Amino acid sequence: MSKLPIVNFTPGPSQIFYTVEDHIRTAFREGIPSVSHRSKTFEQAFQHTTTGLKDLFQIPDGWHIFFVSSATEIWERSIQNLVAGHSHHFVNGAFSSKFHEFSGLLGRVNGKTEAAEGEGFSQPFEFPGAELIAVTQNETSTGVRTGNDFIAGLRAKNPEALIVVDGVSSLPHLQPDFQNIDSVFFSVQKGFGMPAGLGVWMVNERCLEVSNKMASKGHFTGTYHTLQALASNAKKFQTPSTPNVLGIWLLGKVCEDFLRRGIDNIRKETLYKSVLLYQTLDKHKLIQPFVNNLVHRSETVLVANSGNQTERLNNYLLSHGLQPGDGYGNKKSSQLRFANFPAHSREVYEKLCDLITVFE
Amino acid sequence: MSKLPIVNFTPGPSQIFYTVEDHIRTAFREGIPSVSHRSKTFEQAFQHTTTGLKDLFQIPDGWHIFFVSSATEIWERSIQNLVAGHSHHFVNGAFSSKFHEFSGLLGRVNGKTEAAEGEGFSQPFEFPGAELIAVTQNETSTGVRTGNDFIAGLRAKNPEALIVVDGVSSLPHLQPDFQNIDSVFFSVQKGFGMPAGLGVWMVNERCLEVSNKMASKGHFTGTYHTLQALASNAKKFQTPSTPNVLGIWLLGKVCEDFLRRGIDNIRKETLYKSVLLYQTLDKHKLIQPFVNNLVHRSETVLVANSGNQTERLNNYLLSHGLQPGDGYGNKKSSQLRFANFPAHSREVYEKLCDLITVFE
Repeated sequence: MSKLPIVNFTPGPSQIFYTVEDHIRTAFREGIPSVSHRSKTFEQAFQHTTTGLKDLFQIPDGWHIFFVSSATEIWERSIQNLVAGHSHHFVNGAFSSKFHEFSGLLGRVNGKTEAAEGEGFSQPFEFPGAELIAVTQNETSTGVRTGNDFIAGLRAKNPEALIVVDGVSSLPHLQPDFQNIDSVFFSVQKGFGMPAGLGVWMVNERCLEVSNKMASKGHFTGTYHTLQALASNAKKFQTPSTPNVLGIWLLGKVCEDFLRRGIDNIRKETLYKSVLLYQTLDKHKLIQPFVNNLVHRSETVLVANSGNQTERLNNYLLSHGLQPGDGYGNKKSSQLRFANFPAHSREVYEKLCDLITVFE
Repeated sequence: MSKLPIVNFTPGPSQIFYTVEDHIRTAFREGIPSVSHRSKTFEQAFQHTTTGLKDLFQIPDGWHIFFVSSATEIWERSIQNLVAGHSHHFVNGAFSSKFHEFSGLLGRVNGKTEAAEGEGFSQPFEFPGAELIAVTQNETSTGVRTGNDFIAGLRAKNPEALIVVDGVSSLPHLQPDFQNIDSVFFSVQKGFGMPAGLGVWMVNERCLEVSNKMASKGHFTGTYHTLQALASNAKKFQTPSTPNVLGIWLLGKVCEDFLRRGIDNIRKETLYKSVLLYQTLDKHKLIQPFVNNLVHRSETVLVANSGNQTERLNNYLLSHGLQPGDGYGNKKSSQLRFANFPAHSREVYEKLCDLITVFE
């Protein structure tokens, strides 16, 4: 175990947000880790956290917030609950590809529109028959962003389909366009800077209606984590089974922190940090940004083509207390990834860029 | 929020084990909450925790230990992975009943042998055609235990079936009889005294073979949490998707604590505490044990028939810093439940019994 404090740029699990350790201390003082998930105290925590998320993202009325174990679980539950026959997926990396794969494993017809790694989507098309269209707002494996304008275009061309957005590594930085989507989800170990083990699933009334209809027609929508069970329990500020109680409580505290600091300020800082690193990479002789198209460059997961310098750059940064994320999959030895979350301070990003600038 | 430290007797989430808060502090010092689940550090934690569990329970070679989100999830995954057609369930309360229900929801033929609430099972029968027989070692809703002798009898009569044991609130107190079962599972917020959000699933080779066979015949065994995916990742000391990293690490630490103290000592103390409370209830004028048959009385979840004294007894104990668990479901206003886990000290149990003795 390292003795020096290391700043972790791996895009999830990532650097823990500054306040989290103190909040956990408070949680122990208040007995939160041993609180029953059927108690008033839990219900208050559930309500506080959902209110925090609603305030943070200005979530409109009619939206529901559910807590499950991970975003990976939400891929599975989304298909189970929202697709009887046919889903369509925008695939441009390992994670969007897995969501697509889940639909096939669950026996659905699953179309896909693919982009090469490092590239994104610009042209929304019509997908006749698709009950659900899945878009990954930020492909964590490649650092490619899919913009809200594209998603709005998809909605316009496919008014009948549910638009489901994987916001795993884009939230809280990117504001979901709630008017043009039906569901968005994330897990807390990325932008929220929390320990892993909690997925947050937001759906509108349309999703509940679709799922209820499927269930009433005899489609299998799941066992304990059906939208029906999640919704009926959420009405009481509860969950169908024992959830990550401490995680739910903690998320409420982190939302408070984000709100206190101002989500606009956090987003501006994220933007500043991303511009700084992209400029550093654009000017560098040995290392370049992986994503060329400026429109598709993620502001929260920045991927660098580090080629045969990868190991040397990694060790160099590590010797200065900065741990880059590995490139994903077969890019492990040729790329490095840098998460740019609220837990990564402006100062640490400036240090990172200064170090890269003089790396030769 | 209470100012006084309250001891929580709710049978899960329950009282947190003494050492957990300190371990979490250590985890933060060592950067565990932000560690990537694809890193060496995580692999070491995975290995350390599985070794700890193997030492604690003397798990034979050929058994596998997997980490998922909850025991509820393991009900679902067990049916998906181990039953193509027909499961049989011993049902004597709300939790064993849900496991049975999951099998039906998943489209399997699901038989059951039912006992009245507060009663248990003694006579093992043959269940022709059942691919899986599910036994709940400790029914948390009613405080009824199902003994290893009964389970061994089931195995003898049903050598072809997989014997799956729900050990949610019985472990670590009851030693699973690994020779006569094929799978056992638990969640960490009960006997291990940890914050909720982690399920531990142990299976033998036979389970893997059954699941592989099902998959090869085209049966749907799941998306990310198939036994195949769990097993192939566990070979690398990894998980198919981002797990509760901190929880897995923490469980390793709690296993260390249990091993240091000696599992035999912990079990003897649990037995002592249970005898003390049952004796107290047996002698009491107003409150009685719910379970009459001594053989079926759980040593880890003790249920009291408190009738119209329930609210008064609850408030009385609470005024002394002891929080009983509510009776389950429709017993909420007529019973109280007392968890007897390693986190509940001998002293606190003696205090509990002294207080109940003079309650009139």
